[in-house]
Amino acid sequence: MMEAKQAAERLLQADNILVISHASPDGDTLGSASALMRGLLQKGKRVRFACSDPVPDKFGYLFGGIPAQNFVPDFVCAVDLAGPQLFGKNMQEWANRVDLCIDHHGTNTAYARETLVDPCAAAACEVIYEVLGKMGVTITPEIADCLFTGLTTDTGCFQYSSVTPRTHRLAAELMENGARAAEINRQMFEMKSRARLEIERRALASMRFFCGGKGAVMIIRNRDMEQAGAEEPDLDGLPALPRQIEGVLAGVCVKEKPDGTIKVSLRTHSPLDAAEICSCFGGGGHKAAAGCSFSGISPQEAADRLEKEITRRLEETV
Amino acid sequence: MMEAKQAAERLLQADNILVISHASPDGDTLGSASALMRGLLQKGKRVRFACSDPVPDKFGYLFGGIPAQNFVPDFVCAVDLAGPQLFGKNMQEWANRVDLCIDHHGTNTAYARETLVDPCAAAACEVIYEVLGKMGVTITPEIADCLFTGLTTDTGCFQYSSVTPRTHRLAAELMENGARAAEINRQMFEMKSRARLEIERRALASMRFFCGGKGAVMIIRNRDMEQAGAEEPDLDGLPALPRQIEGVLAGVCVKEKPDGTIKVSLRTHSPLDAAEICSCFGGGGHKAAAGCSFSGISPQEAADRLEKEITRRLEETV
Repeated sequence: MMEAKQAAERLLQADNILVISHASPDGDTLGSASALMRGLLQKGKRVRFACSDPVPDKFGYLFGGIPAQNFVPDFVCAVDLAGPQLFGKNMQEWANRVDLCIDHHGTNTAYARETLVDPCAAAACEVIYEVLGKMGVTITPEIADCLFTGLTTDTGCFQYSSVTPRTHRLAAELMENGARAAEINRQMFEMKSRARLEIERRALASMRFFCGGKGAVMIIRNRDMEQAGAEEPDLDGLPALPRQIEGVLAGVCVKEKPDGTIKVSLRTHSPLDAAEICSCFGGGGHKAAAGCSFSGISPQEAADRLEKEITRRLEETV
Repeated sequence: MMEAKQAAERLLQADNILVISHASPDGDTLGSASALMRGLLQKGKRVRFACSDPVPDKFGYLFGGIPAQNFVPDFVCAVDLAGPQLFGKNMQEWANRVDLCIDHHGTNTAYARETLVDPCAAAACEVIYEVLGKMGVTITPEIADCLFTGLTTDTGCFQYSSVTPRTHRLAAELMENGARAAEINRQMFEMKSRARLEIERRALASMRFFCGGKGAVMIIRNRDMEQAGAEEPDLDGLPALPRQIEGVLAGVCVKEKPDGTIKVSLRTHSPLDAAEICSCFGGGGHKAAAGCSFSGISPQEAADRLEKEITRRLEETV
């Protein structure tokens, strides 16, 4: 098991460092990458960033002022990147050439030459903060912004069960080092794109309840996506909505894909087991959140199949 | 200016203490009251709670295990209660008989005999925590739950600009003292009542944009409230929705009241001044959030008047 101190030493020994974020990048992988790059620049290193997908506009500020440098890397560091498949299709070449991976996923496959993983960290940025400390990096307001972005986005604004006292204490320190906490939270959680609003109101309008309100199902069709002008990232968090309604034990989100296949997300509360239910349809996942796919049937038919299976189990157990 | 230490002394000198929360009680006034009462019980005092309105079901756990005692108080303490009008209609008798007020509103009118107010505190619970410390109270898991509830509800789960490093540090300490942080956050922020869902989807369905998306208006009619089975508390936060849409500088929420009057909430971003716009209709408020009322016209007519005034200003200034 590697320590933050050793990870810091490896980075300090290198000169031309490539930092890689996971595909479909979120605030934590991008906050981790940008904070690490700023720290490395402070230590006189040359840095380059790579990611299979473009950085979403709303995270653009993380990379402001980081020079675009071109070089052949002598060291490759992946951040918040738990397994080779998460490199994405444009970055597969790097998946087996990573010198150091800094992560917080207990499921990390240890694909890198060396791995620093802290599964107790609510965000990879918590681990990056430790490494920056061991590197002797000064936490500038810019670095504080990057780390705070990772902390707050990966915890749903300090809401989830992954948050520990350490998470809150780090938030406090980053604020003292100049993180624009309220402004970042506003941009991440308050602002909604017009496309998001449109797809959300269509999804909410489609919501139906069954089993006396213990089940809820929502359908998002291709034509909804088109009419809303929505893309996949606009759906972030939507599948969680049905189970958020009081009394709902099983929340289903049925999503039609452009190729006509159907993707189902299921969220449950105890005693229902989402993974068990989805396994009836060849899917899987966790006890509280699982998924499965269908092809050759309509979204409504997929919704009906889930409803039938959930109803059967609710009648048996609740 | 009173210090926490003096407030603690006053409380320790009393024996039969009445603790009062503000009308339409929220998580902070109730978390403050219940934490203070638990601390006083620990110190051998007798305590009684009073509030003009009933404690909402979702806050019931705050008072679990606190004995219902009946006595004539020798000391009256108001918490999170900034002025006499906030005592509510059933508690007016107490408004001029308060010995000590513990609060975090800079607007506190100093109606009590003595007042401990810290306007830098994000929640009254931050101030209560200081007082409990000076009283020598041990922070039990129950007290930690009460204080955490106030912290998280008054800051929108640590989202608002009122949050300081001290707020995050206190959250960390309360977690270490046994606060069920994730569970409380889930109950406060994730769960939605069925009525709330229904009124939200009706409100979203009504949303219209004008001025190329710089203005947005939402109408909530009495028949929407009836069909949704919604009450006033179910509307919490809804008027903020229109301005949360990307590009919207003026978000209007038009709410029809049972008596037929129309209440308008306006939220703006710079350069629009919500208070100025509402003052055209006899209303007022702050730069970013203001309101006004109409009677004798339809909700649509009220929406049209706001739209016209906002359009005029947008054409002038943006």
